[in-house]
Amino acid sequence: MNITKGGVCAAKGFKASGVYAGVKDNPTGKFDLALVASDIPADTAAVFTKNKVKAAPVLVSIDNLKKTGGIINAVILNSKNANACVHDGIETAKAMCKATAEKLKIDTEKVLVCSTGVIGQSLPIDKITAAVPTLIGKLSENGNADAATAIMTTDTFKKEYAVEFTLDGKACRIGGMAKGSGMIAPNMATTLNVITSDVKISPDLLRTALSDVTEKTYNCLYIDGDMSTNDTIILMANGLAANKFIDSVNADYESFKNALFEVMKNLTIMLAKDGEGASKLLTANVTGAPSFEVGKTVAKSIIGSDLLKCAMFGEDANWGRILCAIGYAPADIEISPIEVSLASKRGEIAVCKNGEGLNFSEETAADILSEYEIEINVNLHQGSESATAWGCDLTYDYVKINGDYRS
Amino acid sequence: MNITKGGVCAAKGFKASGVYAGVKDNPTGKFDLALVASDIPADTAAVFTKNKVKAAPVLVSIDNLKKTGGIINAVILNSKNANACVHDGIETAKAMCKATAEKLKIDTEKVLVCSTGVIGQSLPIDKITAAVPTLIGKLSENGNADAATAIMTTDTFKKEYAVEFTLDGKACRIGGMAKGSGMIAPNMATTLNVITSDVKISPDLLRTALSDVTEKTYNCLYIDGDMSTNDTIILMANGLAANKFIDSVNADYESFKNALFEVMKNLTIMLAKDGEGASKLLTANVTGAPSFEVGKTVAKSIIGSDLLKCAMFGEDANWGRILCAIGYAPADIEISPIEVSLASKRGEIAVCKNGEGLNFSEETAADILSEYEIEINVNLHQGSESATAWGCDLTYDYVKINGDYRS
Repeated sequence: MNITKGGVCAAKGFKASGVYAGVKDNPTGKFDLALVASDIPADTAAVFTKNKVKAAPVLVSIDNLKKTGGIINAVILNSKNANACVHDGIETAKAMCKATAEKLKIDTEKVLVCSTGVIGQSLPIDKITAAVPTLIGKLSENGNADAATAIMTTDTFKKEYAVEFTLDGKACRIGGMAKGSGMIAPNMATTLNVITSDVKISPDLLRTALSDVTEKTYNCLYIDGDMSTNDTIILMANGLAANKFIDSVNADYESFKNALFEVMKNLTIMLAKDGEGASKLLTANVTGAPSFEVGKTVAKSIIGSDLLKCAMFGEDANWGRILCAIGYAPADIEISPIEVSLASKRGEIAVCKNGEGLNFSEETAADILSEYEIEINVNLHQGSESATAWGCDLTYDYVKINGDYRS
Repeated sequence: MNITKGGVCAAKGFKASGVYAGVKDNPTGKFDLALVASDIPADTAAVFTKNKVKAAPVLVSIDNLKKTGGIINAVILNSKNANACVHDGIETAKAMCKATAEKLKIDTEKVLVCSTGVIGQSLPIDKITAAVPTLIGKLSENGNADAATAIMTTDTFKKEYAVEFTLDGKACRIGGMAKGSGMIAPNMATTLNVITSDVKISPDLLRTALSDVTEKTYNCLYIDGDMSTNDTIILMANGLAANKFIDSVNADYESFKNALFEVMKNLTIMLAKDGEGASKLLTANVTGAPSFEVGKTVAKSIIGSDLLKCAMFGEDANWGRILCAIGYAPADIEISPIEVSLASKRGEIAVCKNGEGLNFSEETAADILSEYEIEINVNLHQGSESATAWGCDLTYDYVKINGDYRS
């Protein structure tokens, strides 16, 4: 498996584009409307927010997947406005699908729709539908960067990742794009994500793979504990790689799933790095867990502690906060065997053993924590499973960004 | 019922004191050791942290309550060091009880112990035991302020509250002290709290009242989602008011419980006001709930949203974040009937009805949010129960305080 270029356009038969439709207030010309389309209908799996307040595009996409049996051609996405909690939400979300479908000459239901941004303001649908012809006109095999840029909100960089691998001698690809960077939460940390592949795989296995990999990637991401109304992951597979059809859990399926994990893991890490106001990437590695679930619960409890996030921002090896967060994780664990160390590329330092503090050099610890990427390594010593969660520190800039978001 | 002075010394037969023992690093002379004592053994109920990492003083206090059947004379408390996750924790916690008991000429088990501060550093027990004689020498009916001061960590003001009321013609009192101000969490928001009363009440009803009132006060407080290793509430009742013994759920019991609620609610609000870095007190009032539990879950989800806390700091009426937090609250509710308004002493403004945004004046909203005390009023319109939760905004100062706590 190799990293490759092209994001959502890396896979055969996928094109993308991005334009400025005028949803973003300031006439900066920053793109705010994106399209990803497959040359042929693609089997499509998706995961949506578990928030009871679901934005209109989420409801419309769920409906369209049901109506088409998961056979989808395109996804249209806008940023700056979430199209959530407004009286005309469903109407405008459907209008986005319709405008796209008419121009692409496909059924309206074969288009999915995603929105991200402020909640509670009506979408300027006329601006969007007026921009659709240009958006479609720009569709290209090199349009991935434009699309990835158009879905950015408070993101500071676009997020794309793609890999190439072979299945029975055929070159296959999986590529994706994602946007952050706040309202990213423990129970369904997704935000907007579109992933495309040219692999030929059964719809059932596509869904299983997406669900399994989501559990170990996006669902292990924690920025601020707020679960969005719009979170969506869409995975499209159009089969154009012409590999031997994957219809059972065989070696090819494992290769596909590994490649999907690689893409989604790297997008997850990008989301963590670009968490609102983040100055450090935090990775919590929990080993010696009785199960993946327990390891994940502990890792996310650590990465979700505001107090620890502040300590990491301050480069303070305040490991008591790690143990405290382990202690209130909703998991059945023993505290007495636990070991904790802090690491970065400058080294690793043990700070806690048998659930108790160790004498350590504060100077060495501060040196290790001065790095941008910090690892919090916890060995529970009560099993052989492991889990990793990703997050970032809590900084002045998080407060600044979110104290003044709408304006 | 009237507010009265005296904090933990308001009730008859209770004395308190505070001294500088030298646990706090800098020789500023800031008190760090406190004592609350009853002239006669008092029936005592307590609630402790649910964190699996329990500090040594929590374990020792639980044990002493068991050994004495809840008959306690005194509570010794230190700040600056949590006596948690250290090899000699139990030993030093017991030594604190022993030194106090010897000097007071009572059984060691009749002393409870609380600590608060940094996790993972051994307590300088010699300094503490050396200070105990002075601490006991200073015990006085006016020592409440010294005691309340001595338990402060990052608190910016001492927290005391007391009320006076009558039961069958006898004057009775309940008074308490508390400390914050970070690591205050959804499942057991207690921190350290000592509450004293001279009411004569059965131990069982004392426990029931403490448990019920905790549920509606401290457990409705949310600062940062971090549940401490040391959280403790101790409620002592020595019976010196000589009221008719309360041994059933009668009118006297209700009066006692109302008074206890008044004390604990006001301490809770003080804790919220003094949340680390807080610049605003936030109160979430949820009405129209199908049950108190659902109302509380929704109120705490709102008050716990980092994004909303930042918006309130920025005085931005970003009500979508309120609806978002309602939507991910783990409660079975309908979104479509929900109404939301924002209020302060400058007025009230409706921002959401039927789960959708209303047109409102941003200017009026900003004016309302410019106040120090903000109320977020939510009517779920799906029942007749209500609940209130208290919290504070998320500010630059929270990050500053917690980025550099240990030094």
